[in-house]
Amino acid sequence: MSETPTNASTSKVIRNDPWFGSYAARAEAMRASEIRALFAVASRPEVVSLAGGMPYLDYMPFAELSELIAKMMVDKGDVAWQYGSAQGDPHLREDVLQIMELEGINDVQPDDVVITNGSQNALDLITRIMCDPGDVVLAEAPNYVGALGVFQSFQVDVVNVQLDKDGLIPESFENAIVEQRALGKRVKFLYTVPNFHNPAGVTLSVERRPRILEIARRHHVLIVEDNPYGLLGFDGQTYPALRSMDAENVVYLSSFSKIIAPGMRIAWMVAPPGIRHKLVLANEASILCPSNMSQFTITTYLDNFDWRRQINDYRGMYKGRCEAMDSALREYLPYCSWNKPRGGFYIWLKIPEGLDSRAMLPRAITAKVAYVAGTGFYTNGEGSDHMRLSFCYPKPERIQEGIRRLASVIDAERQTAELFGTSGASDPHPHDSEVPGPQVI
Amino acid sequence: MSETPTNASTSKVIRNDPWFGSYAARAEAMRASEIRALFAVASRPEVVSLAGGMPYLDYMPFAELSELIAKMMVDKGDVAWQYGSAQGDPHLREDVLQIMELEGINDVQPDDVVITNGSQNALDLITRIMCDPGDVVLAEAPNYVGALGVFQSFQVDVVNVQLDKDGLIPESFENAIVEQRALGKRVKFLYTVPNFHNPAGVTLSVERRPRILEIARRHHVLIVEDNPYGLLGFDGQTYPALRSMDAENVVYLSSFSKIIAPGMRIAWMVAPPGIRHKLVLANEASILCPSNMSQFTITTYLDNFDWRRQINDYRGMYKGRCEAMDSALREYLPYCSWNKPRGGFYIWLKIPEGLDSRAMLPRAITAKVAYVAGTGFYTNGEGSDHMRLSFCYPKPERIQEGIRRLASVIDAERQTAELFGTSGASDPHPHDSEVPGPQVI
Repeated sequence: MSETPTNASTSKVIRNDPWFGSYAARAEAMRASEIRALFAVASRPEVVSLAGGMPYLDYMPFAELSELIAKMMVDKGDVAWQYGSAQGDPHLREDVLQIMELEGINDVQPDDVVITNGSQNALDLITRIMCDPGDVVLAEAPNYVGALGVFQSFQVDVVNVQLDKDGLIPESFENAIVEQRALGKRVKFLYTVPNFHNPAGVTLSVERRPRILEIARRHHVLIVEDNPYGLLGFDGQTYPALRSMDAENVVYLSSFSKIIAPGMRIAWMVAPPGIRHKLVLANEASILCPSNMSQFTITTYLDNFDWRRQINDYRGMYKGRCEAMDSALREYLPYCSWNKPRGGFYIWLKIPEGLDSRAMLPRAITAKVAYVAGTGFYTNGEGSDHMRLSFCYPKPERIQEGIRRLASVIDAERQTAELFGTSGASDPHPHDSEVPGPQVI
Repeated sequence: MSETPTNASTSKVIRNDPWFGSYAARAEAMRASEIRALFAVASRPEVVSLAGGMPYLDYMPFAELSELIAKMMVDKGDVAWQYGSAQGDPHLREDVLQIMELEGINDVQPDDVVITNGSQNALDLITRIMCDPGDVVLAEAPNYVGALGVFQSFQVDVVNVQLDKDGLIPESFENAIVEQRALGKRVKFLYTVPNFHNPAGVTLSVERRPRILEIARRHHVLIVEDNPYGLLGFDGQTYPALRSMDAENVVYLSSFSKIIAPGMRIAWMVAPPGIRHKLVLANEASILCPSNMSQFTITTYLDNFDWRRQINDYRGMYKGRCEAMDSALREYLPYCSWNKPRGGFYIWLKIPEGLDSRAMLPRAITAKVAYVAGTGFYTNGEGSDHMRLSFCYPKPERIQEGIRRLASVIDAERQTAELFGTSGASDPHPHDSEVPGPQVI
């Protein structure tokens, strides 16, 4: 997330740590990604950042909102500022039902919902209750960096399942289960972002959805469906959630971060009773309870504004930005390849053979454009032939300018590669084993 | 925390869970405390709850605050509602320095501070980065329930260190280190609440503080100093924080929950560089970043109100309530024993020989008074001879009425015990191995 303040201290190596050797095994592998240092630079205003996954918030009616939040504070500040329930505010748990109905989930009760401190914490909780060190989580490759960070922090083995333009490939999912079990591994769940995937931009086809569920049921593998972008289809289209077709084998995650705003850190999960029961206990152990102030701020918004229309406005805006990026790519980088997404925030760009997106990043930042190298979305060192370009935050003209700058860098790299057979980077991946920082939303 | 909504679903046993056997080892032990079911009953208005640790918030200037928060929203809603830094808002990290100075900590820089989602999350993070399953954490006995919940969720062995009226006993601390190491155990840290201990009410004497630090240094054992109550000394007295005497061997935790309000879920940690570096990475993996909206709400308050005076008002109020409880105990339960605390929220009451606070709780709730049984503050089944009484939330006349009701229950139990040699409970502790729910703040 290049646009947010990043503290320089977290990117430097701590030398002579007297507690070296005293940490938990899970912490020994925690190391800041070297791209964090670049992020501090990338957040300068002269840099066009195509790196972050920050929603664009200028459409929010902050003036009217501020009055309503002030009224809420006067009416019930003593509750908003007090401890709350570990499962989350009942009013908010009721409100999210309407949102889920838009994607076909209509059998959920408020008691099935757990409010979490953002989806990141939801991922943390489900991994915490399900996974011992060495257990396997199946996940799309490439995959959301923040999820990979959680899985690695719980010492989970992430096993890749292949994606194509129609999303997760069912056969790859089934093969991975069978192979891992043959190796004696415990396969705990499939983690999937079915709609407008981060970073791949693809959406699981409607035809594949029941097949994925059937495989999961047959092999008794839980599905963790992470759906932050599902309502951001550019043409207002939605897809039936996996959860809408199976209440027993799916843990469903969604969030207000992309459809409304991330600053409250409020997300939610829906889970079958046994799992939900443990999630609430884990939520208590992790954060005691979500913030009442944050939850009441969200319910104040939902109850007083036409949030469906606002989400629709967002969709239109992001569609325009995606179009701007797509046409700039066609103009400036016609020799690269990408799938034009139908929603969400990201284009997953394949760069020419022989180029390395990670090695190239410092040169891109020198040219005042930032992206996220594809290697961050894998745990196995793959991805140097891709980069993630976000079109969510910069305005269309900035996107165009960013792609123009990016093209100048890629062009120069290509020339170097043609002359020398390589883009010139030596040892570009010194830290392949490190945990990628989930700051890349 | 009896006064907050508790969802009934979390207190019932989930039968026929199809995922039984699929959970992580750390989750197998997660079971809701049976006292949770009682808590739903205890939150009824006719029950005097001496169970929860909720601060009393009626002194908060919500009307003026609401206007300032509205102005903040208009001025910088686009940042307040956006993602923030994993280490926390720089302005807030600057602000907390002034608060720590009140307890003698004056060598901290904003870069040393990590903002967390309440102290519960801070405890989670430090345990996560330090402790493998089977590692030892030394902790006062009795101890804060929420901390015990975190330690158990990371499969840590909690080893008791003895307390007396002057707090943690240095010799007991040193003996525990030596004994555990002789057993081949890795001792990761001492967890201590030095000021106005929850639940014991005692404060670590000033004379003992350097001795504790010297032992920790000599044995290279980290100290985790949890200090939510330090500014709530009834006579305005403060004690030098352990962190003020040692920057290298202490991780310091404090929170706005008790001195201002808990509803924002904002707390902070100060740690030596190597540890702090990992805490920031763990914070990212756990929650991505603390809520900007919550942090800006706190800074709006700190920057615009006389928070030192407000804390002083709180002190006076809690002092009055402590006096009310102490005099009611002297009147109604003179045969019990307790130390009158000099600050904080709690009295740790020893009940007559042969009585069992846990077995007695349902009868207390029938008599419309609630407390927390002492067993919740131990991991080894001890504590049935004590109960924690909170004087923070109910008004003095309610406290007096609550103690009167409690005395009627204890009197009846004593009579039963005298007649039958026991208070009549059969198998009162069926779930001693369970994780106590950290809802008991």
